[in-house]
Amino acid sequence: MTDRELPIRGEEEPSTVPVPHEERLARAALNAITEPGDPRVARLVALLGAVELRERLDADTDLAGLRSETAERLAAVHPESLLAEATGQGIRFLVPGDPEWPGRLDDLRHCEPLNALTGVPLGLWVKGPLSLDEAVRESVAVVGSRSATSYGTTVAADLGAELAGSGVAVVSGAAFGIDQAAHRGALAARGRTIAVLACGVDRAYPSAHRGLLDLIGEVGAVVSELRPGCAPTRVRFLSRNRLIAAMTTGTVVVEAAVRSGALNTANWAMRLNRVLMAVPGPVTSAPSEGAHELIRTGGGLLVTRGEHVLEVVSPAGRHMTSRPRTPETARDRLDATETRVLEAVPLAQPATTSSVARTAGLATTTVLDALVRLRAQGWVTGDGRWRRSGDLPGW
Amino acid sequence: MTDRELPIRGEEEPSTVPVPHEERLARAALNAITEPGDPRVARLVALLGAVELRERLDADTDLAGLRSETAERLAAVHPESLLAEATGQGIRFLVPGDPEWPGRLDDLRHCEPLNALTGVPLGLWVKGPLSLDEAVRESVAVVGSRSATSYGTTVAADLGAELAGSGVAVVSGAAFGIDQAAHRGALAARGRTIAVLACGVDRAYPSAHRGLLDLIGEVGAVVSELRPGCAPTRVRFLSRNRLIAAMTTGTVVVEAAVRSGALNTANWAMRLNRVLMAVPGPVTSAPSEGAHELIRTGGGLLVTRGEHVLEVVSPAGRHMTSRPRTPETARDRLDATETRVLEAVPLAQPATTSSVARTAGLATTTVLDALVRLRAQGWVTGDGRWRRSGDLPGW
Repeated sequence: MTDRELPIRGEEEPSTVPVPHEERLARAALNAITEPGDPRVARLVALLGAVELRERLDADTDLAGLRSETAERLAAVHPESLLAEATGQGIRFLVPGDPEWPGRLDDLRHCEPLNALTGVPLGLWVKGPLSLDEAVRESVAVVGSRSATSYGTTVAADLGAELAGSGVAVVSGAAFGIDQAAHRGALAARGRTIAVLACGVDRAYPSAHRGLLDLIGEVGAVVSELRPGCAPTRVRFLSRNRLIAAMTTGTVVVEAAVRSGALNTANWAMRLNRVLMAVPGPVTSAPSEGAHELIRTGGGLLVTRGEHVLEVVSPAGRHMTSRPRTPETARDRLDATETRVLEAVPLAQPATTSSVARTAGLATTTVLDALVRLRAQGWVTGDGRWRRSGDLPGW
Repeated sequence: MTDRELPIRGEEEPSTVPVPHEERLARAALNAITEPGDPRVARLVALLGAVELRERLDADTDLAGLRSETAERLAAVHPESLLAEATGQGIRFLVPGDPEWPGRLDDLRHCEPLNALTGVPLGLWVKGPLSLDEAVRESVAVVGSRSATSYGTTVAADLGAELAGSGVAVVSGAAFGIDQAAHRGALAARGRTIAVLACGVDRAYPSAHRGLLDLIGEVGAVVSELRPGCAPTRVRFLSRNRLIAAMTTGTVVVEAAVRSGALNTANWAMRLNRVLMAVPGPVTSAPSEGAHELIRTGGGLLVTRGEHVLEVVSPAGRHMTSRPRTPETARDRLDATETRVLEAVPLAQPATTSSVARTAGLATTTVLDALVRLRAQGWVTGDGRWRRSGDLPGW
């Protein structure tokens, strides 16, 4: 048994009882007729179970107005064929209780709504070889502006590569800008990456990312709460953001304008007690303003590289950040007297031995000995009138 | 009586008893024969008073080794002529108890040493028209790398101008790079700026800053713990940094390499419970690394502009930061139904009215009415098959 196979402390072992087919069908049907993140649906499923909720809606019971909104669709939905069609396209439908279901999503059960959205998804449509639960155990969302700067995309790609290269799955939304760069970085590092969409996993939005999404579907995972065929809408992006935050250990915001989807994901991460991080940038750059606000207001930790992210999201002790240090300098090798004397030699113009002795607070003979040694090592120049070599002090 | 003249809460009224001349002479003599920041001197002055300490050293009492180090100099020093010469050069010697003495420096009395330096200065040599105590009541140190980038100097100059323009004195060290830019920004805004030097106030270090220092001496204040004529040494820079931190309400680090003088000033600011702030920059820029580390490790608040600094250093309520907001958009003026319908119109390709109704969870007739209104306002296009105008959603 390798380290990777050891169960992560604090997470439950997946259930070994298979999810009943009726439960899966009920969830597929409800998923097909409702919008993701509808808290009424989540509440009713938690209360009645998916099977009973479906039966009651079938039986014309108007629950919290759901029946009137869904009547047309409920009659038309055929979950068996939905699932069969998906399977034909290489798409699986995961539901809670499946071994591959990411247990972390259950944190959405008691999460306060944001934009009137919340709740554990009824199910997830997934395409790709990654085992979702295993992949997201150590995972980080890298999100940010679609209209990113080249600085932002460079940082996001580097971060994606560093994280994925260290075995952490990089989760993002496959949008233009930061999302794309993060996925690309992870792919280039031959690491794991997961695209979470606001449309069906068979679709590409933006359509320019068809190739990127195909590749992620082949080597990673493309995930959506929306059944295949669904188009993206604004509210679906907002529900999708809650999944990105809930699925991952932490979220890193790279560049985010003040009213941006990335800050919506950041909000979810805070609500879900995930680690929220942000990468700073030039204060003169508007796309970094959202990231700076997250740090300033105490919501986000400042991170500048993958190492910082790994330190906070990985199991304790696995990754430790080395504090940046300059290498040992030649000055570090001087003895205490030499250092004291060197520091007493003026920077600007020559000084006499007795003037140096006065400043150093040492006897003149001691100082003269030290000055001769310092001259031999190239620290000072002169003979009676001493000055520092070089023009700028090293601190 | 204007607001400015009101005494600041929590600060003592300046004493109205003039400092005895004997006390000033003793401090000038001790200042002339010792190095700034020597904790033995500070301790002995606190214990015995300056007059008695001078007498005991004159009387050949070896106190903590001070006598043996200072014997040569003590015999030679003539404080009366030192003071007279300084006055001739337009330089005054402030000591504790003088109305112009910044009371804030007394916080150094109980401050733990850093690099074996600490203590309230024996006195300060000052050149320039500013009343030092009044000027530093609302003051901010802006410090950073000598080898700053153009990004760093732009930010420092803007910050200097914003702060000085708001009536806050900008304190720095007149070095190349960030210091110079901060002083220049303050001067350009016709604001108050104070240069604190590691050499005599009659000298210019670096010599290229002769003009800058002359101007600050004419309109602001040039301050040093070292008597006129003294040359800078490394240890004097380190003692100088403690004054910059102690004299000000807060310190802002703009760009700072990992082993830099600016971080030494930052350390003093933390030790003295001053507000420590840092300006982020590109994570790809080495000079910003020290600033990022200060924020990351929790020592420094992230600030991106003068407004943020004013908010934390000014008396409560005087300056309040407005959270960045995008202006109200046309979308904010749609009613709830219109918004819900608009959000249900797919971004990528056209949808039928009933498909939009399904997504929106509203009756088809309601949706059709709303779509017609949205079309009239230019939000959607189509007639039966609807799509969003424009290609990117506004969030």
